[in-house]
Amino acid sequence: MAAAVNSSINYKAGGNGDDHVEQVRNQQVLARDYISAIPEESDMYFNTSTIKLKVPAGEEFKGSVLLKNLYLSCDPYTRGVKQSDSATTKQDRIVFFSPDSPIVGYGVSKVVDSQHPEFKAGDLVWGITKWEEYTLITNMESFFKINHTDVPLSYYTGLLGMPGMTAYAGFYEVCNPKKGEYVYISSAFGAVGQIVGQFAKLMGCYVVGSAGSQEKVDKLKNKFGFDEAFNYKEEPDLNAALKRYFPEGIDIYFENVGGKMLDAVLLNMRLHGRIAVCGMISQYNYEQHEGITNLMHLIYKRIRMEGFFVFDFYHLYPKFLDLVVPYIKEGKITYVEDIVEGLENGPASLVRLFSGRNAGKGVVAVARE
Amino acid sequence: MAAAVNSSINYKAGGNGDDHVEQVRNQQVLARDYISAIPEESDMYFNTSTIKLKVPAGEEFKGSVLLKNLYLSCDPYTRGVKQSDSATTKQDRIVFFSPDSPIVGYGVSKVVDSQHPEFKAGDLVWGITKWEEYTLITNMESFFKINHTDVPLSYYTGLLGMPGMTAYAGFYEVCNPKKGEYVYISSAFGAVGQIVGQFAKLMGCYVVGSAGSQEKVDKLKNKFGFDEAFNYKEEPDLNAALKRYFPEGIDIYFENVGGKMLDAVLLNMRLHGRIAVCGMISQYNYEQHEGITNLMHLIYKRIRMEGFFVFDFYHLYPKFLDLVVPYIKEGKITYVEDIVEGLENGPASLVRLFSGRNAGKGVVAVARE
Repeated sequence: MAAAVNSSINYKAGGNGDDHVEQVRNQQVLARDYISAIPEESDMYFNTSTIKLKVPAGEEFKGSVLLKNLYLSCDPYTRGVKQSDSATTKQDRIVFFSPDSPIVGYGVSKVVDSQHPEFKAGDLVWGITKWEEYTLITNMESFFKINHTDVPLSYYTGLLGMPGMTAYAGFYEVCNPKKGEYVYISSAFGAVGQIVGQFAKLMGCYVVGSAGSQEKVDKLKNKFGFDEAFNYKEEPDLNAALKRYFPEGIDIYFENVGGKMLDAVLLNMRLHGRIAVCGMISQYNYEQHEGITNLMHLIYKRIRMEGFFVFDFYHLYPKFLDLVVPYIKEGKITYVEDIVEGLENGPASLVRLFSGRNAGKGVVAVARE
Repeated sequence: MAAAVNSSINYKAGGNGDDHVEQVRNQQVLARDYISAIPEESDMYFNTSTIKLKVPAGEEFKGSVLLKNLYLSCDPYTRGVKQSDSATTKQDRIVFFSPDSPIVGYGVSKVVDSQHPEFKAGDLVWGITKWEEYTLITNMESFFKINHTDVPLSYYTGLLGMPGMTAYAGFYEVCNPKKGEYVYISSAFGAVGQIVGQFAKLMGCYVVGSAGSQEKVDKLKNKFGFDEAFNYKEEPDLNAALKRYFPEGIDIYFENVGGKMLDAVLLNMRLHGRIAVCGMISQYNYEQHEGITNLMHLIYKRIRMEGFFVFDFYHLYPKFLDLVVPYIKEGKITYVEDIVEGLENGPASLVRLFSGRNAGKGVVAVARE
């Protein structure tokens, strides 16, 4: 999947007999280089190329699809891969920033032309596309056809897309939750955390989230229905904070941050607790990661700690939709988007995500149809 | 279970109408105090008391059993509980050393008298008893009746007892192994590690173990059938050592040591690897545990890391016997014991275990019948 998306097929090459096809402008957001940390606006630049609105002829484009991108997703994993990590793990990860190539990321798109038997012009899809107006995808493996169009299409970058599926897989499949259990979510105001918390409430769990500002804490409690929430930046003793919110201990920890928070959580887990490791955002920019010293509690409390990637769970997507689409229609899930209009505002939106100043799921509306 | 074993019932109290019952010598090994690290001989002392060979009369002894102890087990967990750990976990753990009380540990015993409907005089049992000649057990919950007596009875302190069940539960139940997988076992010469390695070989896995001396390494390879083994003390770079023995990476890590070894293993795990956390012996005596810095790999490789206690798996004991007793009779499992004769040699045997100088499973033969 990654290889296909990142391949630099020169699909503007002529001589394919499609000279009569309309050639249109294709505005793009390109990366200057690989990045090693969180992206800055100066890591990206704009380019205006042209593209023919047709999949090129030739055997090598059998299975290819030309997409018009409608919504692009700003996600926290859209960042650099540390050299030390990439050495051992590159093959498993998507490179979002490659020199002079469009940024890679999830998006919602409309099929303009197709040489793929399962996709036809006019179909709506979501999957891993690029930050440009039109994208030729040579391997459609990452794409899902959108069948439910009676919900906002932009939701397929979040609640009904990868973040929603991540929340679903991590909570239901990895954590194996039961009614009445005590659930803690770090980085709870993030796209995934918000959804996990609401899934847990709908299941009848007690849910506490942490976030990095009083505004987010208030929203978690008042808007997203968390039982409690706290600002981790104002807690000098995380262990004490967790003991305050979980006097009985934690059954399920949805891990998004790592570091000191994980160490404090380990001290507060209950017997047979589960930790779904979705991310460790506090560690991404450390050259030397913070050491976790309380892993002995994995034994004392017979804890299962499991890292997961949403990719391994996409076969459950139809089951996920059966659960979540009714929740949306019945108003049982709260979902907030922070949509900016136009690809030209994309880089700023992506950078804002990492500053913690986003007001909801970051989405770039490239075209409304 | 722990509470029952550690309760200080004064079963020598008179006035129970059993004055005609034979009163015999009961030699005991007592602890001077709680201990906070590995035991030394000076932490223990001998005492000779007397005991009536009959469960006392009275309602409170319904369900009690008087045992003659035959074999006592020297196990690596027979050590102190750190104050910082015990604060949160005491309720889940057995206290082996309590002031002026017999050492608590696993053993093989014969029922002398019983007020329990499921046990009768002459039955052979194994479970958590005390370091003395005779022990009154008021709660038989930890005991299993021994039905297979055509194998050495002392095996029920090891291969057919708690260490064997630990190996079985950790390998088959927690690790979910498959034929052909790459298995690494730290502290592989220990009572549990030896058995795990042989289970893995019998399943068709590639098995490498580490130990702390060349002699143990040689035995792992030549006597216990490991594919490879190495002396971790002679590897300045554990990551490089693991890469040498596992060029394709590790599917299953049976964790007995923690610390730097765990950190190196995390760098070498394969996709969807499993880590069964049985112990972290390298960390038991540290006031401040070593920090683990490579947990990000739990995500990169979608690794499941799970702490377990054998207690949670004892319902599988019959299934375990069905597997292992035939292996023993067919000579498919190698098992070595280091038996000392007499309770008076017990303390030295227990202390030797922690020095790494044990030649096999440490057993104290208190009585041969």
